[in-house]
Amino acid sequence: MDPIFELQLRRPAKGSRAAADCLFRQLRDAIAEGRLAPGAQLPPTRRSQAVFGVSRNTCASVYDKLLGAGYLTSRHGSGTFVALRRPPEPQPAAPLGEPDARLNPLWLAGGVTAAMGFWQEAPERVQTAPVAADFRPALVDPQHFPHDVFRRVSTQQLRALERKPASLRSPQGNPGNLALRNAITHHIALTRALACRPGDVVATSGAQQGFDLLARVLVRAGETVVAVEDPGYPPLRVPFMAAGATVVPVPVDEEGLVVEALPREARIICVTPSHQFPLGVAMSPARRHALLRHARERGAVIVEDDYDGEFRFDGGPLQALKAADSADLVFYVGTFSKCALPSLRLGFIVAPPWAMQALVAAKNAQDWHCSTPLQVTFAAFIADGHLTRHVRRMRELYGRRRELVRHALLGPLAKWLEPLPSFYGMHTAAVARPGVDVEATARRALDDGVQVHTLGRYHLGPATRTGLIFGYAATAPAQLALGVATLRRALSEG
Amino acid sequence: MDPIFELQLRRPAKGSRAAADCLFRQLRDAIAEGRLAPGAQLPPTRRSQAVFGVSRNTCASVYDKLLGAGYLTSRHGSGTFVALRRPPEPQPAAPLGEPDARLNPLWLAGGVTAAMGFWQEAPERVQTAPVAADFRPALVDPQHFPHDVFRRVSTQQLRALERKPASLRSPQGNPGNLALRNAITHHIALTRALACRPGDVVATSGAQQGFDLLARVLVRAGETVVAVEDPGYPPLRVPFMAAGATVVPVPVDEEGLVVEALPREARIICVTPSHQFPLGVAMSPARRHALLRHARERGAVIVEDDYDGEFRFDGGPLQALKAADSADLVFYVGTFSKCALPSLRLGFIVAPPWAMQALVAAKNAQDWHCSTPLQVTFAAFIADGHLTRHVRRMRELYGRRRELVRHALLGPLAKWLEPLPSFYGMHTAAVARPGVDVEATARRALDDGVQVHTLGRYHLGPATRTGLIFGYAATAPAQLALGVATLRRALSEG
Repeated sequence: MDPIFELQLRRPAKGSRAAADCLFRQLRDAIAEGRLAPGAQLPPTRRSQAVFGVSRNTCASVYDKLLGAGYLTSRHGSGTFVALRRPPEPQPAAPLGEPDARLNPLWLAGGVTAAMGFWQEAPERVQTAPVAADFRPALVDPQHFPHDVFRRVSTQQLRALERKPASLRSPQGNPGNLALRNAITHHIALTRALACRPGDVVATSGAQQGFDLLARVLVRAGETVVAVEDPGYPPLRVPFMAAGATVVPVPVDEEGLVVEALPREARIICVTPSHQFPLGVAMSPARRHALLRHARERGAVIVEDDYDGEFRFDGGPLQALKAADSADLVFYVGTFSKCALPSLRLGFIVAPPWAMQALVAAKNAQDWHCSTPLQVTFAAFIADGHLTRHVRRMRELYGRRRELVRHALLGPLAKWLEPLPSFYGMHTAAVARPGVDVEATARRALDDGVQVHTLGRYHLGPATRTGLIFGYAATAPAQLALGVATLRRALSEG
Repeated sequence: MDPIFELQLRRPAKGSRAAADCLFRQLRDAIAEGRLAPGAQLPPTRRSQAVFGVSRNTCASVYDKLLGAGYLTSRHGSGTFVALRRPPEPQPAAPLGEPDARLNPLWLAGGVTAAMGFWQEAPERVQTAPVAADFRPALVDPQHFPHDVFRRVSTQQLRALERKPASLRSPQGNPGNLALRNAITHHIALTRALACRPGDVVATSGAQQGFDLLARVLVRAGETVVAVEDPGYPPLRVPFMAAGATVVPVPVDEEGLVVEALPREARIICVTPSHQFPLGVAMSPARRHALLRHARERGAVIVEDDYDGEFRFDGGPLQALKAADSADLVFYVGTFSKCALPSLRLGFIVAPPWAMQALVAAKNAQDWHCSTPLQVTFAAFIADGHLTRHVRRMRELYGRRRELVRHALLGPLAKWLEPLPSFYGMHTAAVARPGVDVEATARRALDDGVQVHTLGRYHLGPATRTGLIFGYAATAPAQLALGVATLRRALSEG
């Protein structure tokens, strides 16, 4: 396409002098700002009237002036071109530690950067060699997702959308949102035995937006204290920090969050009761009861992050904490990043009725609603039973990988590691026996292409115990076995 | 599917008494919480060992106890069923004015509710009759969007995604983001003559998330003063209020924002220079120059909201304000809600390099990234030239509708209204001549099925002038003509 056309040069004022000046300035700016690409050909002067609205002589004088100033080059016989100079490169962003004074410093603070990047290796540690095995938690195996089914459902739903386009009565026309919330209620009733109504559900862009919306509506900047599990999921902390809350770490043991250790002033308590992240343990019935009583007595609310509760193996607790929430103080945050795909960016909040109006207002203010094509597609994907079937398949597949890891922990790795009990989800953890240096082990393993996280990475406060986390969802059995052998070697060298 | 299976009852403790109590409590809770639907059939006692892990006698005793307590009903010969009682209905949300003390009161404040709902009629005013004509601004005509092309591109891209699934090295695997940012740079170079690099772009869930991210990274709660155009786009104000900024209205005249009226302490200045929302005027070159100088001298930044600049008609300024941003202090917020579809929820920010790291951190903390299937689909939709073709088609179509409205304003409606100059976009505005009651006119028009907004709806401070806004994008010519006739009648009655 002719760039000149898209440059939409303003018609020059009348009078050849004014016209020449006007055209000269516009072409010069366009070249300086890179809107006219280096090497681009300019229209021949004989077309100047049509293209620029100036006479051929005026155009020729402007070209001469630009040639003289070095903006253009002329190749004899072939025409006039933009000189091969490039617009200036952007300056690098301000390095960490010295944020621009115009920015809220929070976003460049080391703690925030580390929390959001918890899943990455430090740049200097990143392996260029192919990864032999990846034990990082919170990874899914996308190979087994029914991409073809999703694509078929998507095509059907886009066709259906076309037949009933977004209502003109709303500039944010949001068909599909109710269908998705409906489908979500069925999904959690089946997989989590959790009863709720579509009116209790807010669809979000993944659990992360769920945390952010809850921070928005529940936190009063400078006042609210938020208790988080330690160790815990680092990115959960950031939205609460950004909302101006004080985030306090609370220890976790084999029974889950240590309720007695909760600060009296905590008004928001964030927990992963089904499958503690990253320890993998389930919160004991006694602790659940104590937590609900504590929240009720202190007027606190609970944020239940149930990120992989769909993957339930033998035993384990019956219910989500939300299912026992008789006092309407639990916010249940779910995600489709684990039971479907993280790249979809879909999740939800099941909220008490008293908070729904504020949550919807906060969601609208943030991005109005999730993308309609995605909402209608995933609603149908759930309603047609595809998600349930996928979860069942993955429950078996992840179950087999889990057994492989647990056997390794009870066998070849038992000398160095003591596994923690785990009945749900996509990872399990093991505590280091006395004298084992897990940090050195993880570094050695990474040098051999095996990524494994230590518990230290997940602590906000001082680490109370050391250990390793074994995410088994994203790695095929052969690679898991290879990873175990590599880890055994790394441990034995410690 | 058998609900009992999905209830995953915990295996009762040994000993028939304990087993009976355990089973009784779980079934009772499941029924009370609605996880066992009213009318659902329970397994026959002969299957109790297989389903519940208890003896037939124990199961029978539990059923009897539940029957006695009214949780179950028994139909002779046909089995045992959950009694037809429903879980309690959720309580209504707290009414406006008395927010729950656990909530940040901002989200229930009248100002926020009004700002986010600016495009709606008050509930008691909502028309149930079909809308004869809709002059509200910021609406698009989805009928003309190439849904079939979008669907084809989507299917192709989902297939391509399947072949290279999200990298396992990132739990937020985000392929397609760079492709989308690349495509965005081409789109704005073509339609807005704005030169930037993919590294300058953050893809967002529409312009609204762009405003929210900018509020997050640029506002210091309790300190920052933000200047907004008055009248202006109400939902822009809310993210800045939520971030703890003081939002100050600044008057707008026929040349755009009155730069001299900017408060000295304003550190963020939000403007719509190409097509003021809602007046429709373009910011004059003198004002643009004065605004950039003011921001430079005061150390302020500018948020340029260019929501419909793709639709450029004769005359008008050549450039986006960002194109003249030599001092790197303009944040350009773009959206695909107007030039494509609002239901996609896609937009972007072109940001100065010094702010990019913080913006990406804030985006990650909010929802990591936009949905990958959507990103890859829209990137290809742009790269294949479909968006440019659509914009050109709509430029002509909207241009014709615009002419129809402008002729009406210069003809049949001229007695009551004086049109404001407008060269861009999807709406234009007209000021009321002395003695014309536009509020009464709008009410009368709505009673006749014609939706038209008054300027008053868009004011944060006191309204300086009265008038009507004419969005012409979403309404077909015949309906526009009908709407004009209805308005003429409504005006003549005033």
